[in-house]
Amino acid sequence: MSDRVEFFDIQAASERIRPIAHRTPVLTSRSFDTRAGVAAFFKCENLQRGGAFKIRGASNFIYSIPKDKLSRGVVSFSSGNHAQAVAIAAASVGAPATIVMPLDAPRSKVAATRGYGATVVTYDRMKEDREAIGARIASESGATIVPPFDHPWIIAGQGTAAMELLEEVGDLDALVVCIGGGGLISGSAIAAKAMRRGIHIFGVEPRDGNDTHLSFHKGERVKIPPPQTIADGLRSMQPGAVTFAIVRELVEDIVLVNDGEIREAMKFMLSRMKILAEPSGAVGPAALLFNQLPPTLKRVGVIVSGGNVDLEFLQTLGN
Amino acid sequence: MSDRVEFFDIQAASERIRPIAHRTPVLTSRSFDTRAGVAAFFKCENLQRGGAFKIRGASNFIYSIPKDKLSRGVVSFSSGNHAQAVAIAAASVGAPATIVMPLDAPRSKVAATRGYGATVVTYDRMKEDREAIGARIASESGATIVPPFDHPWIIAGQGTAAMELLEEVGDLDALVVCIGGGGLISGSAIAAKAMRRGIHIFGVEPRDGNDTHLSFHKGERVKIPPPQTIADGLRSMQPGAVTFAIVRELVEDIVLVNDGEIREAMKFMLSRMKILAEPSGAVGPAALLFNQLPPTLKRVGVIVSGGNVDLEFLQTLGN
Repeated sequence: MSDRVEFFDIQAASERIRPIAHRTPVLTSRSFDTRAGVAAFFKCENLQRGGAFKIRGASNFIYSIPKDKLSRGVVSFSSGNHAQAVAIAAASVGAPATIVMPLDAPRSKVAATRGYGATVVTYDRMKEDREAIGARIASESGATIVPPFDHPWIIAGQGTAAMELLEEVGDLDALVVCIGGGGLISGSAIAAKAMRRGIHIFGVEPRDGNDTHLSFHKGERVKIPPPQTIADGLRSMQPGAVTFAIVRELVEDIVLVNDGEIREAMKFMLSRMKILAEPSGAVGPAALLFNQLPPTLKRVGVIVSGGNVDLEFLQTLGN
Repeated sequence: MSDRVEFFDIQAASERIRPIAHRTPVLTSRSFDTRAGVAAFFKCENLQRGGAFKIRGASNFIYSIPKDKLSRGVVSFSSGNHAQAVAIAAASVGAPATIVMPLDAPRSKVAATRGYGATVVTYDRMKEDREAIGARIASESGATIVPPFDHPWIIAGQGTAAMELLEEVGDLDALVVCIGGGGLISGSAIAAKAMRRGIHIFGVEPRDGNDTHLSFHKGERVKIPPPQTIADGLRSMQPGAVTFAIVRELVEDIVLVNDGEIREAMKFMLSRMKILAEPSGAVGPAALLFNQLPPTLKRVGVIVSGGNVDLEFLQTLGN
């Protein structure tokens, strides 16, 4: 497979991941629509297995590894949703999984990852390089590294989210997707444009985690310092090489929201829509609620990327 | 129409309410299943329009009123989900709605009810009788009283929740439904038994709001003092006459959960399933999580009745 991802790859991914990923519901909310001035269709990946869209890409990747290679296992480095997804997908095919996590990762996440049957290797964030540790484990064991976003198999898997959304709601003007490393938006853009040529694709980043926004406007990949934002899934410092090429080709614009707007969107979704979005999952809804998108849009698909947030955090949301 | 509700009435209600009620999703959760030791299928009426199943019965009732009578309006007394549902359904057909609410009702609920276009009449809970006020308004204006549960049109409407659930997941062993006045469980039991003869129907009440439990075991309607429970939707003091007859005929058993168990279930649903259930909506899940149902059950449908809870309340849940 080349670096090029086509709609056909996403359709194949959809078949491949069917046994493991939920087909998540598409929800609507009149109160949201009234306030945002659009008809919004929420693809609820917060209700996905593992609590985020990540299972789509991780399982498509792992199920694409040749059998003899797969038996040597997989390795991933992440303290977030991708790690859980790799652990779940590896367990589903009996492949050993090693997840490299920082020593100070939340105990609940370490426990959850172990609970899925993965081996957790910890490292000191101040002194050690997790990619080097992952690479060493891979070269010693023959395990395959499952990258978080910048790979065609990952991108094709993530694209199934938008594919399902457009299968259910075909006549969308626009699709709004959050951007971390860019795996979700690039896969989703390919699927959406294939299924509805004229659809406009908008990316949303946290104001301080604007690496793709800057790169988009500069026309080349820009690296930023570690972002400070509550959207922990979107703290990437640089877009991927594969993902950025797709973003440049297919995305219309990238808008920004601040942490206060993200909190407001989370509260609105919880109190009015009764669903829990994590900060990263609320940036798309925040962009709509706070009018960051063109006012001409009428029917807008929004991917709610995940819902993994500690209940302690909710208590900081206020009323 | 007699007091008797048949499956045919529920099928007709389903057609009637289609323009206004959401077909809510059925969600599953492996973490819930692992902990409860069953395969649970959650019919998410917390994601329903107005945040609760009540729109089903209220709209079926209002759409069944003859046109000439409907133009004189409807009246309802409730400080909760039924009031909102009546206001929404009445507005959808341009019928004037008057809702009798206590002076000390939460301002947000009064505002929401007015926001749907209803006229709110307040009364003093200590000195006045809301039913008398409602009856006076009805007799003066010719408006039709929309009862909260004890009427065949209401029961038929509520039954559409279980009908949709069984259309999606046919092979259930059991259906678990919370009981306030009994409208939801009686309609749901009729639908479920018609669609799957052998299904077992279980009711769940808060331990202190056990009016139907006591009545069930005594074989006649018992009245209890005003219940103290966080499940504000289930604080009925006596089952309805029509609903209780159906409960006696079709329900296998009624189990009880306490407020601590309800809180735990709410927390579990929020943190693991990413959905917000109100206390009344969490009693069914609580009964499963705390093993109040026969251990032989394997595939269990659970109706999550609503999700209307103030975010302040969430902050009392702890971690």
